[in-house]
Amino acid sequence: MTRKISILGATGSIGASTLDLVERNREQFQIIAVTAATNVEKLADIARRTGATLAVVADESRLGDLQDLLSGTGCRAAAGESALVEAATAEVDLIIAAIVGCAGLKPVMAAVECGRTIALANKEALVTAGALMMDAAAARGATLLPVDSEHNAIFQCLAGSQRNDVSRIILTASGGPFRTASAQHIEAATPAQAVAHPNWTMGAKISVDSATLMNKGLELIEAYYLFGLPSAQLDVVIHPQSVVHSMVEFVDGSVLAQLGSPDMRIPIAYALAWPDRMPTPAQRLDLAAVGRLDFETPDLQRFPALRLARHALESGGAAPIVLNAANEIAVASFLDGEIRFPDVTALVQEALNDAGYGAPRSISDVLEIDRVTREKTRGMMKASCS
Amino acid sequence: MTRKISILGATGSIGASTLDLVERNREQFQIIAVTAATNVEKLADIARRTGATLAVVADESRLGDLQDLLSGTGCRAAAGESALVEAATAEVDLIIAAIVGCAGLKPVMAAVECGRTIALANKEALVTAGALMMDAAAARGATLLPVDSEHNAIFQCLAGSQRNDVSRIILTASGGPFRTASAQHIEAATPAQAVAHPNWTMGAKISVDSATLMNKGLELIEAYYLFGLPSAQLDVVIHPQSVVHSMVEFVDGSVLAQLGSPDMRIPIAYALAWPDRMPTPAQRLDLAAVGRLDFETPDLQRFPALRLARHALESGGAAPIVLNAANEIAVASFLDGEIRFPDVTALVQEALNDAGYGAPRSISDVLEIDRVTREKTRGMMKASCS
Repeated sequence: MTRKISILGATGSIGASTLDLVERNREQFQIIAVTAATNVEKLADIARRTGATLAVVADESRLGDLQDLLSGTGCRAAAGESALVEAATAEVDLIIAAIVGCAGLKPVMAAVECGRTIALANKEALVTAGALMMDAAAARGATLLPVDSEHNAIFQCLAGSQRNDVSRIILTASGGPFRTASAQHIEAATPAQAVAHPNWTMGAKISVDSATLMNKGLELIEAYYLFGLPSAQLDVVIHPQSVVHSMVEFVDGSVLAQLGSPDMRIPIAYALAWPDRMPTPAQRLDLAAVGRLDFETPDLQRFPALRLARHALESGGAAPIVLNAANEIAVASFLDGEIRFPDVTALVQEALNDAGYGAPRSISDVLEIDRVTREKTRGMMKASCS
Repeated sequence: MTRKISILGATGSIGASTLDLVERNREQFQIIAVTAATNVEKLADIARRTGATLAVVADESRLGDLQDLLSGTGCRAAAGESALVEAATAEVDLIIAAIVGCAGLKPVMAAVECGRTIALANKEALVTAGALMMDAAAARGATLLPVDSEHNAIFQCLAGSQRNDVSRIILTASGGPFRTASAQHIEAATPAQAVAHPNWTMGAKISVDSATLMNKGLELIEAYYLFGLPSAQLDVVIHPQSVVHSMVEFVDGSVLAQLGSPDMRIPIAYALAWPDRMPTPAQRLDLAAVGRLDFETPDLQRFPALRLARHALESGGAAPIVLNAANEIAVASFLDGEIRFPDVTALVQEALNDAGYGAPRSISDVLEIDRVTREKTRGMMKASCS
């Protein structure tokens, strides 16, 4: 049976991995809609290759180019936020939600409100709008399949069990490039050092988040909303080899773990084939060749971001939005050489202290808190630099 | 809802762990029948404590004592093979099959033929009569829940997935006390060295099996019958810490693993509560405290038993019965100081070479091949000692 799929964020790395799997299994999938932020050339190429019937570019100024590129293909070109929502709500069996950043919020929420099954690779959806998303999903019968390797691992470990059988969720963290570094070394860390992630090839922003452990903090917040366990039942363990992608402990003392090679096609395939599985060309895990797996308790002194994120999670309301927005601004400034590495979490801390927003009641509220926080964080930096 | 349970082999260690869990959750379980090989004092005590209505001692010469001990309790005493079968076929929700050795075959088969759900801790049932048991289970709708920590781990990892999603089962083996020993050292191993198992406290026979890796070979055969995968899809990896109890690899490249403290109450609880879970007092796994997990490829040169067992598995028919019977005799002789450590697998090899039996068509056939093999193996030892 052919599954109809739309890919929001088709030109990014999650999009590429999804397309790789879809094109290896053409008879099983039919691509309906594809979207991109700005790269109309790549988007048009994807639309041609897959036979998609709708291609949407977020940047409205690129619509003319997209139309030209798609002329004669039978694929309709569209642009802007309402077109993204149209792509997100097209009648399909599965939506791959891989738009980066808060630009993904409205399309994902639209898909949730249609009761769709969504393979979620957009972190902001749960970090900033977790309560709204999960409430809407419950009300409309939408299913969220996490694509992130950690949450996908947890989702796999939970298959076939009930929520009250679970005693603890244990997220694994690589520890990043500064896992064994002294506090002094971390204080002086350069952007080049911070983006050198030991196990996964990732973008600069997420690499810095991995170096501060903010990435794991954001995942803690996602796990909280996705799996409905309180903060006290969500743990983080440092595991430098990143072979164990995360774990679930059950009331009987059993721990189930999901392991694998660092290949995003594995969690994407799980979402594509769910509740079944499909073959992937990902390298098989050879544990004897890996040889050794290590585990450590995270050091909240050297990596305060994890503590800040848990604090934001437990505070709820707008706190996770502020955490995320302040962190993005601070990381960008660090990468631009404007602030030092420890200033990243210091700024997030300051933004959290300063925030006094009520809980968001809509995606528009979320976006407004996000916008205001970014502005304020930029202001804080100027104040501290002047 | 109260689950009715019978415990075959109630006085052994699996029986003790089961009773510990049952007595912590009295409202959930009702013990119907309990059995023992010879220890009527312990059996009578268990029957009194649990309010069982039938207590069976395998050794008929102990029936009088058992009757005396149970007089006035309302618990009926019985003895011998037919009484064991009666205990195994009593109307219950779950049978704990923990009789040691081939004495368990007829009672387990009787329970299977009644279509019961059986928590299987009797290795011989699958090693020597796997094809017969699984065929009967399929025909009568019986369910086998493996209690062995490795097979229970695999069973947990398979929950919620389909057989054709599985690409490989990976049994973990501690590697035993001679994992890092030289071939010369192993050749000269004493019984005291062989029974010093690094992670689990076990009986002498199974400890020697762990030292030769025959234990893992027998588990490979059990896995073959339990999970219906061919030999090529059954792997063994050495994992000295025994924290990962076994793993399942799926077609997408995902590996699910079950981990835990070395406490048999965890797999027993899984069987008792299946398909749900129940709390246990087992120590929670603290991976950061464990610190490190190692994995190696097994060395078939130093540990030929694993190769022999795989050969027996692939040969099928009577070969696993011969493997098991010859190994038991050889291990007993080694423990008695009659033969050297490498003679154990040499004798098994010789017995396999010598065996020319057809596939067993009944449990009586199995028991006869078992008996003849034991006799022949004893003869081989006398021949080689004279």
